[in-house]
Amino acid sequence: MLKFNEKSLIPAIAQDADTGEVLMLGYMNEEALRRTLSSGEVWFYSRSRQELWHKGETSGSRIKVHSVWKDCDSDTILVKGKATGPVCHTGNKTCFFQQLTPSEVDEGSRQEA
Amino acid sequence: MLKFNEKSLIPAIAQDADTGEVLMLGYMNEEALRRTLSSGEVWFYSRSRQELWHKGETSGSRIKVHSVWKDCDSDTILVKGKATGPVCHTGNKTCFFQQLTPSEVDEGSRQEA
Repeated sequence: MLKFNEKSLIPAIAQDADTGEVLMLGYMNEEALRRTLSSGEVWFYSRSRQELWHKGETSGSRIKVHSVWKDCDSDTILVKGKATGPVCHTGNKTCFFQQLTPSEVDEGSRQEA
Repeated sequence: MLKFNEKSLIPAIAQDADTGEVLMLGYMNEEALRRTLSSGEVWFYSRSRQELWHKGETSGSRIKVHSVWKDCDSDTILVKGKATGPVCHTGNKTCFFQQLTPSEVDEGSRQEA
């Protein structure tokens, strides 16, 4: 059985089914997952807006589902699919378009101190 | 600046740098991320054991880091790398080896009811 977290959400990775590119990480509640499976398009639960979120409803960039996977301890979802446009709100194909540098992590701790 | 969650953790996707296969999702605290960047091997923070976790320390299946990315809103990490063995504790190459069926989600709700 799937394990949802204390907020009744489960993290869901969206991946391009052909290229393998990781597109984004979102969160699904049970209803979002059910709609993803039944509609063939990715639904998330928006933590900021606190509502179901049909990915691409506004932007037009939907993600068509090819297959849905769970991990070994049933607390993460992987959706392999094809996006109909740029997945990121910045216009990038993927949300992971920025490489992280060690200085960026150190900067974080200095600001905390 | 990176956004850690209310438990001071950030989800981190590990992906095979060559095949694009998604291997697992783990969680890093700031120290795990720093060690990942400085050592060139993936470190997580184990939520169950509540301690830093050098991935593969016990199993021998480490993940050698090729590059580290952050997403557009700086609250998810993507590590592209190469595992030295099966990443999953089940012996599978990836933790995502089971496909999810609609019946499994419905089963969850029936058990809740």
